[in-house]
Amino acid sequence: MKVTVKVTLKNGVLDPQGKAISHALHSLGFDGVNDARQGKMIELDVAEGTTEDQVKQMCEKLLANTVIEDYQIEFAA
Amino acid sequence: MKVTVKVTLKNGVLDPQGKAISHALHSLGFDGVNDARQGKMIELDVAEGTTEDQVKQMCEKLLANTVIEDYQIEFAA
Repeated sequence: MKVTVKVTLKNGVLDPQGKAISHALHSLGFDGVNDARQGKMIELDVAEGTTEDQVKQMCEKLLANTVIEDYQIEFAA
Repeated sequence: MKVTVKVTLKNGVLDPQGKAISHALHSLGFDGVNDARQGKMIELDVAEGTTEDQVKQMCEKLLANTVIEDYQIEFAA
């Protein structure tokens, strides 16, 4: 069973990687870019019957730093 | 306008970061995890009227290494 976890920086947390992307896109001539933020996407292949609660535990314990990051869990249909 | 670009490693490309996540989850007692792969998620704030073709150009030129990575473009509804 596939589960996708999206980890993004919370609003207000400085994102130097995103800033670098934004600047680089401008340098390449893409002037329409106002902002860029980079996050992580973790695709897990888990055993059938794994609950959302278990995946939440994984996020809290390992995948996301909840002080500065938010996470979203999506089970594949 | 918000556009999300998901960059993932192509199938068959070794993903040490994903392997590390998978091992760490096992060490924490999450035995139901068969595999993990890590990708990037880039959230762009672009000017209204930016076309999918322009975002594709950004991916090809900067955001993804198309030799080893795939990308997916999603416009926010």
